[in-house]
Amino acid sequence: MKVGFVGLGHMGGAMAVNLKKAGHELTVYNRTRAKAERLGLKVANTPADAARDAEVVITMLADDDAVTEVVFGPSGLANTLRPGAIHLSMSTISVALSQQLAEEHSEHKQGYVAAPVFGRPQAAAEAKLFIVAAGEAGAVKKCEPLFAAMGQRTFPMGDVPVKANVVKLSGNFLIASVIETLGEALSLVRKYDVNPEKYVELLTSTLFAAPVYKTYADLIVKEQFEPAGFRLKLGLKDVRLAMAAAEAQAVPMPVASVIRDHALEGLANGMGDKDWSSLAQVVSNNAGLNGRS
Amino acid sequence: MKVGFVGLGHMGGAMAVNLKKAGHELTVYNRTRAKAERLGLKVANTPADAARDAEVVITMLADDDAVTEVVFGPSGLANTLRPGAIHLSMSTISVALSQQLAEEHSEHKQGYVAAPVFGRPQAAAEAKLFIVAAGEAGAVKKCEPLFAAMGQRTFPMGDVPVKANVVKLSGNFLIASVIETLGEALSLVRKYDVNPEKYVELLTSTLFAAPVYKTYADLIVKEQFEPAGFRLKLGLKDVRLAMAAAEAQAVPMPVASVIRDHALEGLANGMGDKDWSSLAQVVSNNAGLNGRS
Amino acid sequence: MKVGFVGLGHMGGAMAVNLKKAGHELTVYNRTRAKAERLGLKVANTPADAARDAEVVITMLADDDAVTEVVFGPSGLANTLRPGAIHLSMSTISVALSQQLAEEHSEHKQGYVAAPVFGRPQAAAEAKLFIVAAGEAGAVKKCEPLFAAMGQRTFPMGDVPVKANVVKLSGNFLIASVIETLGEALSLVRKYDVNPEKYVELLTSTLFAAPVYKTYADLIVKEQFEPAGFRLKLGLKDVRLAMAAAEAQAVPMPVASVIRDHALEGLANGMGDKDWSSLAQVVSNNAGLNGRS
Amino acid sequence: MKVGFVGLGHMGGAMAVNLKKAGHELTVYNRTRAKAERLGLKVANTPADAARDAEVVITMLADDDAVTEVVFGPSGLANTLRPGAIHLSMSTISVALSQQLAEEHSEHKQGYVAAPVFGRPQAAAEAKLFIVAAGEAGAVKKCEPLFAAMGQRTFPMGDVPVKANVVKLSGNFLIASVIETLGEALSLVRKYDVNPEKYVELLTSTLFAAPVYKTYADLIVKEQFEPAGFRLKLGLKDVRLAMAAAEAQAVPMPVASVIRDHALEGLANGMGDKDWSSLAQVVSNNAGLNGRS
Repeated sequence: MKVGFVGLGHMGGAMAVNLKKAGHELTVYNRTRAKAERLGLKVANTPADAARDAEVVITMLADDDAVTEVVFGPSGLANTLRPGAIHLSMSTISVALSQQLAEEHSEHKQGYVAAPVFGRPQAAAEAKLFIVAAGEAGAVKKCEPLFAAMGQRTFPMGDVPVKANVVKLSGNFLIASVIETLGEALSLVRKYDVNPEKYVELLTSTLFAAPVYKTYADLIVKEQFEPAGFRLKLGLKDVRLAMAAAEAQAVPMPVASVIRDHALEGLANGMGDKDWSSLAQVVSNNAGLNGRS
Repeated sequence: MKVGFVGLGHMGGAMAVNLKKAGHELTVYNRTRAKAERLGLKVANTPADAARDAEVVITMLADDDAVTEVVFGPSGLANTLRPGAIHLSMSTISVALSQQLAEEHSEHKQGYVAAPVFGRPQAAAEAKLFIVAAGEAGAVKKCEPLFAAMGQRTFPMGDVPVKANVVKLSGNFLIASVIETLGEALSLVRKYDVNPEKYVELLTSTLFAAPVYKTYADLIVKEQFEPAGFRLKLGLKDVRLAMAAAEAQAVPMPVASVIRDHALEGLANGMGDKDWSSLAQVVSNNAGLNGRS
Repeated sequence: MKVGFVGLGHMGGAMAVNLKKAGHELTVYNRTRAKAERLGLKVANTPADAARDAEVVITMLADDDAVTEVVFGPSGLANTLRPGAIHLSMSTISVALSQQLAEEHSEHKQGYVAAPVFGRPQAAAEAKLFIVAAGEAGAVKKCEPLFAAMGQRTFPMGDVPVKANVVKLSGNFLIASVIETLGEALSLVRKYDVNPEKYVELLTSTLFAAPVYKTYADLIVKEQFEPAGFRLKLGLKDVRLAMAAAEAQAVPMPVASVIRDHALEGLANGMGDKDWSSLAQVVSNNAGLNGRS
Repeated sequence: MKVGFVGLGHMGGAMAVNLKKAGHELTVYNRTRAKAERLGLKVANTPADAARDAEVVITMLADDDAVTEVVFGPSGLANTLRPGAIHLSMSTISVALSQQLAEEHSEHKQGYVAAPVFGRPQAAAEAKLFIVAAGEAGAVKKCEPLFAAMGQRTFPMGDVPVKANVVKLSGNFLIASVIETLGEALSLVRKYDVNPEKYVELLTSTLFAAPVYKTYADLIVKEQFEPAGFRLKLGLKDVRLAMAAAEAQAVPMPVASVIRDHALEGLANGMGDKDWSSLAQVVSNNAGLNGRS
């Protein structure tokens, strides 16, 4: 398939490489051109150039602002993508922007599929992402070979694109919740001199035997907050997007509020560029652990 | 081994039966004698009678008050257990009471092992409990054959008994956190008409593939809050005990505070005897779901 | 002074009338023209017409969107106000927009003073508003006769306009906190059959003898939530703006989070158009009062 | 009137002196006898001695434990006070203990009046306390001359003693709420370089013109947390008692939860003996103010 790909960060770069491996005809665009060239892919000068002949253009960008810049405006994707072609939006973006994209592409007779992913850069490299996809059935079907090249499983969420975004954001909220609550539980047991490794071993070999607990409990117990796999300030951004989606539908989420406040506390105290598992350190600092007082 | 067993509720009854099956010489006591007889076990008239000749006396009772009543006082276990014999305390009790028990038994030259369990009644019946054990090494070792008869795995937490209790309480806090945060995430996605079953399928086949998510997400999505496996008012009690243990060591646990407040809201609105998974219903009520408004 | 006035709602209408009474030469604009005419003021067809000859143009509008619409764009105030003239922004708007206005007007060599107010419509009618003013000293000085005509006291906050906005937003947060905490305290004492009137009499004749407690305790005890003096959904908006200003500077405000979650609960349950004192009803509903359960 | 007085701390000492000044025949007891003698009052060797001939015995002690020790037990007040005499309990104690006292004294045909007070030591010295009184009407009436000697105004709360206690505890919760929310608001405005004194001047000369805002805003802005007028750890105790009273009646109080968590954070970080206005410092620390990061 002729595919345009915009955004070659840690995630996007790996995903693009996997698409090429799977035999797709790829043209990529990245703000920093050198990065695109290093991957040995065919590089376009503008997003519009990457989009012009494509059947599907994938965006995998940092945030709402980046997506907005690439899609809207005179030479944005909405104006350059051919009618019938599909914008496959895989970034973690707000529900509000996704809704706007759906409307904009619909006006231009283009397809729009929202398909954010779960997985850290290593999972992207191994084509083991979990993909949450929503959009008009034909458009989603057309994207399936692409999903197959990038992920281990796709979860279809129906034909309303924003559903995929809200699922993604709620999922990130649940991950943040695991970090926060592990932080609270570990602070408690550490104050009673319980061995943290043994404690985590107990949790993750019984009721909490899930990847999310294993990954984050390990980072927390080892206090391995740098280098960041996913920075606290980005974690805060995602929680904010989840809360914005919730606010738009009048859903109180008090644990999200706790996480937001702890993330702000982390930022205020110089931890914004640490891994978001350092939320647990905010919690243990507040308990007077870590020799701060 | 000669074993006394006090407290034959849903959990204790199953555990006692498994001990007998494993060949131990059991004398049991239960406040409601009929229950004890129905299980075909040798029944004592008082806790003291169950304890008198025992090498180990197990208590598996509802709360601090019940344990206090059985252990202290003129004919309590502390006065009737032989020197050298062990009180194996498997109830979910406060850290403060466990510490008091440790001191009391030490004064009477008796052993004391704290060994609370994770698992619902069915796990107890199938001898698949997870047991968290702490106490003087020799005493814990002596209890091992009993643990083997009741559980699938024992997690030793060292020689300070209260460590086992704080681990148990923190574990229940983590379970309650899963219920609360699933409640928040599901309220959010339901407002966007995401199919809850598909959503849970996604979670539990990816990052959240742990028994605790499967069990509780299923109860929440099916709104199957009755009959209660574990009542909300007992869940509140356990969260309160975790918070008391945290307060004694100056550990702020804001998510525990959120859970406590939601549990109180549930109690105030007639849900105290529902399963504690109904915490998620408190959350969705607050979001105006369930047609309350 | 020649004054333009844009926005004649409950607050703005009363303020404009007071300016005219004080002898200022007023030209007003309101989206609904009839409203402007009813007040007997000189009516302009567009905001630009109200601004053209003015020394000071006052905006008193509902929210950021309304102010943005009036100020930016080809025929917005920024393009029609004369160099040297002043935009006096009295609406409750975000810190971010106020900062943008400061920059925009500076580029056009226009003055900009932020001067939000405290006071309900009756205080506006009686020229008893409290005005918080910030901006370049000369510009603020020039506005003083206008402040004198509309308010009982002006609090200068220095030469950085956004300071006035953040003070206003933090003040609204404090008012909401009084409502929330009165709601919690009253729910508690009501459950013990304490007479609410006597309770409020005690509070407001001792440590809490402040207008804000008197006003809101009275509304809460009488459950007089309609008609709304200030709607819950607008209260939520202001708390959101305070939280946004706080987030921009990494300030956790957990009580603001509680208020936000309760306001959302109110909206979700049909209370968005009630007075924001009904936050206290959300609280008492959660305590099972008001016969909901 | 013949009055026994037990407990001569900062508050009790001043109150006892005022009773003597008013002409009452006082016998006092204090654990530290020297303190009692220094005040020039007639000193008893035991609480029982202070109670024996009294028409009214006043207790003004630090906490539940102290009151329990003085009232119960073979030589406690319940056993030594004459039938018909009154126990006037002015300490800040739990609702649960007050209820127990009511029952115990009723069994002994003694009167029981709960009458906790609002006011710091200076108000006690100046006989300007606010007294909240509840109990059987005749008993309360009998205490009126005593109230008149110690306070500036008495607020009767009916004939159920615990009502006075719940009012007192809810009042302390409201004071703590003022500290917490001022801490949040001041952290916000300080981040925008607003002058804190001007900000407080604005608040306390407008909507928040109440003693509680003046007193605490002043302490917070001056960061005058030592010496403590009322220590943070005691503030935490009172909030805990309010939450316990709320829990007994299923009242969620999320702002109380926030305060409790912040007080614990303060204790964990070495602030337990500072004035409870230092709650605001916990808040500003979390915002990265005070140069901690």
